[in-house]
Amino acid sequence: MSPAFAQLDAGGRLRHFLTLDGLPRSLLESLLERAFSFASRPGRAATRGEALRGSTVVNLFAEPSTRTRASFELAAVRLGGDVLNFDNALSSRVKGETLLDTVHTLLAMQADYFVIRDAEAGVQELVAREVDSEAAVVSAGEAHLSHPTQGLLDAMTIREHKGDVGQLTIAIVGDIARSRVARSAHLALRTLDAREIRIVAPRAMMPEAAEFAGARRLESLDDGIAGADVVMMLRIQHERTGAAGPVDLAAYHREFGLTAARLKHAAPNAIVMHPGPMNRGVEIDSDVADGPQSVIRRQVANGVAVRMAVLQHLAEARRTRVG
Amino acid sequence: MSPAFAQLDAGGRLRHFLTLDGLPRSLLESLLERAFSFASRPGRAATRGEALRGSTVVNLFAEPSTRTRASFELAAVRLGGDVLNFDNALSSRVKGETLLDTVHTLLAMQADYFVIRDAEAGVQELVAREVDSEAAVVSAGEAHLSHPTQGLLDAMTIREHKGDVGQLTIAIVGDIARSRVARSAHLALRTLDAREIRIVAPRAMMPEAAEFAGARRLESLDDGIAGADVVMMLRIQHERTGAAGPVDLAAYHREFGLTAARLKHAAPNAIVMHPGPMNRGVEIDSDVADGPQSVIRRQVANGVAVRMAVLQHLAEARRTRVG
Amino acid sequence: MSPAFAQLDAGGRLRHFLTLDGLPRSLLESLLERAFSFASRPGRAATRGEALRGSTVVNLFAEPSTRTRASFELAAVRLGGDVLNFDNALSSRVKGETLLDTVHTLLAMQADYFVIRDAEAGVQELVAREVDSEAAVVSAGEAHLSHPTQGLLDAMTIREHKGDVGQLTIAIVGDIARSRVARSAHLALRTLDAREIRIVAPRAMMPEAAEFAGARRLESLDDGIAGADVVMMLRIQHERTGAAGPVDLAAYHREFGLTAARLKHAAPNAIVMHPGPMNRGVEIDSDVADGPQSVIRRQVANGVAVRMAVLQHLAEARRTRVG
Repeated sequence: MSPAFAQLDAGGRLRHFLTLDGLPRSLLESLLERAFSFASRPGRAATRGEALRGSTVVNLFAEPSTRTRASFELAAVRLGGDVLNFDNALSSRVKGETLLDTVHTLLAMQADYFVIRDAEAGVQELVAREVDSEAAVVSAGEAHLSHPTQGLLDAMTIREHKGDVGQLTIAIVGDIARSRVARSAHLALRTLDAREIRIVAPRAMMPEAAEFAGARRLESLDDGIAGADVVMMLRIQHERTGAAGPVDLAAYHREFGLTAARLKHAAPNAIVMHPGPMNRGVEIDSDVADGPQSVIRRQVANGVAVRMAVLQHLAEARRTRVG
Repeated sequence: MSPAFAQLDAGGRLRHFLTLDGLPRSLLESLLERAFSFASRPGRAATRGEALRGSTVVNLFAEPSTRTRASFELAAVRLGGDVLNFDNALSSRVKGETLLDTVHTLLAMQADYFVIRDAEAGVQELVAREVDSEAAVVSAGEAHLSHPTQGLLDAMTIREHKGDVGQLTIAIVGDIARSRVARSAHLALRTLDAREIRIVAPRAMMPEAAEFAGARRLESLDDGIAGADVVMMLRIQHERTGAAGPVDLAAYHREFGLTAARLKHAAPNAIVMHPGPMNRGVEIDSDVADGPQSVIRRQVANGVAVRMAVLQHLAEARRTRVG
Repeated sequence: MSPAFAQLDAGGRLRHFLTLDGLPRSLLESLLERAFSFASRPGRAATRGEALRGSTVVNLFAEPSTRTRASFELAAVRLGGDVLNFDNALSSRVKGETLLDTVHTLLAMQADYFVIRDAEAGVQELVAREVDSEAAVVSAGEAHLSHPTQGLLDAMTIREHKGDVGQLTIAIVGDIARSRVARSAHLALRTLDAREIRIVAPRAMMPEAAEFAGARRLESLDDGIAGADVVMMLRIQHERTGAAGPVDLAAYHREFGLTAARLKHAAPNAIVMHPGPMNRGVEIDSDVADGPQSVIRRQVANGVAVRMAVLQHLAEARRTRVG
């Protein structure tokens, strides 16, 4: 994400939501506060709002994602918005101007929000520059680089269960190099002044030295989670095999799978997180995923709340600028 | 469907709608009465309601079904609900825990109703046990075993046209062994004390002796429909070929196809039913399907009404239990 | 489109919208007037209405079309309608009665509007005859023959930018023979008494002599657009190769591609149109498509307005007839 493109307006509100990079702490806090106001309780009716009444939200997902797409769709619908879904709408068009023709077509049809997931870096910013003030772009995942609403929901879930992030040691574990979840969590938690962020990965999955500024790097799971208040496991994306060839899943589990025994190295009441979908028996065992320290399902619930918060903020900011 | 799982709550209302097996007659009658209140008239505006306002209905169809999915979607939308469709969402996940992870993800997003069609037996009950009181599961077709809303709509259509089921002789004709439609119709009609239920099929399509308790078995179409008040034809699912090899469609039509000539064996004002989609010229001739005795289109209309009735009942029952 | 089927009711209102052929000028003007009332301004909230509240619109698109389908879907939703999408629902069924079974199923479910795109001629009329007064059929593109809402939006865009069509010379350029866009534009513009309509195409893409009555035929682009007030470029459908084999795109661009230099042959303030999606660098250069004379994005915006106008007219006409 080029910092050249300002996602903030003159009043410090979001014009688009493309990255957590450079987001002021006060804005991040304000988004979390909104999200808590939308948070739902199990068995209770979903929280709703009216911020998107009369607005049109277009979901442009070039990568399949039942989970994230459903989360954004529900967030939009529960704020009264109309939703159009275009799965793979950009994938065949992602070269140059044709993508922008699709965007301008939807813009001419009065699309107000573009929620975009793409495997290619820069697509969200390209679209944001193009639609400028006519519509708002929200990233739903950009290559291996960024997944800002996931970063927010992770921060929200940590605060919900463990309070002040400034007092916490948080271990992010797994294929860090290729994880947009890890990058956005790192940015959110650094903005909230986490006491200590650790990235824990086998050497082959460690990111470049310049990345994850300020984080401690550990190549052993036991050391990595020792005394941690939060253990954030990542999904092994074994469908994406890199230059190093396919991942040996059994070997990975032996070295980096979170078992109940290993979890004992973390702080006694540490919480366990995972962005889903899980590979049970690979990066995480079922008794941990479903155990008392797991907050994985709560992450999903908070995901809808965070997306409602972002969309509501964008709607209010647009109204303020116009009005 | 294991009778071990109680789909009824302490007050005798539905917590889920998985099967007609064991459903008290009073409850079935009450669902039919609701359904009649939702029944639409051709050319008139669709009946609507508010029971699902603020609720989220997720359609999880592992088997394609334009017809049933559209019927459930319209039923939910006309009651004010929000609908998410996941075609084939479970099909690639139908093994063990991953299905349940998908369900818990949707539950965490505050899904209130799961409408599930699956080729595998037990999926609906598995999900119902898991979501328990947080959401309600409605079966939209379970393997060859059960299709409870179809059973209700068939009973409704029969009562609409022929009155008291207790006075009627009803012939169910075709590939009984593999038909969930036949099984659910049989349960609904037995609960309503039909005078006589006949299952009419070539020997190879007859179900096990233990099934269809109380029904007469006939292997000739002419004998099977002789004097019947209702002739319910089943679809030959020639896309599913069993151990016996593909069905010879021409031979099937000669032996079991309902022609205008053969229909004369039934009672003079007998009605003709078919769950659709029809193989015209195979199990039913067009002049019968489109003739004056056909109520096939009315079955479709009643299908929406029945699904609205079930969803409204579930919504009221949830509110009663919570409140 | 057979003129045998009257799409108008006794009061001269539309019962269906299948073709511009035979549409009285007063009715066309009235639809344009409605469409202008729905026209949106960039950056402003989309115009909305209530004409379809409680109604169900079914989109049956046998040919993929993100653009036209989205336009109809938004038009319906913004008028308060409920929408069901069936992509390819008819394509596997387009033979004989099975199509009609699908239609009757949806009709029994109380579908009020069928929006149909099909590669086969006559499907829309076939369905319209069948649903008759119970529902209204709107063509979203019929084979190479007709695309009436596109014709309307083209006329609307011309009038919006150039005023009285009776004073204008309009050049339609490209693969006229296979273009439903050209045919519907010709009908709309002839009904509005355009001063001169030119069809401009290489000989191989010229339509039969009996078609495009009253239009001048020119086989050179420079001559064809000389002095024209409107230059309407067509998409080269190179995915559909005819008997003549694939189109040589570079050669086509040399002969018939609209470049900035060539556009100088048109009237000084001529507008440039294209129905989209564009093949940039083939039938049109990017500096023209994105240049000051282009009204291409405005066509898209007007497309939603025109579809809202048609649906609202049909809704009011139905209400008037019922009573």
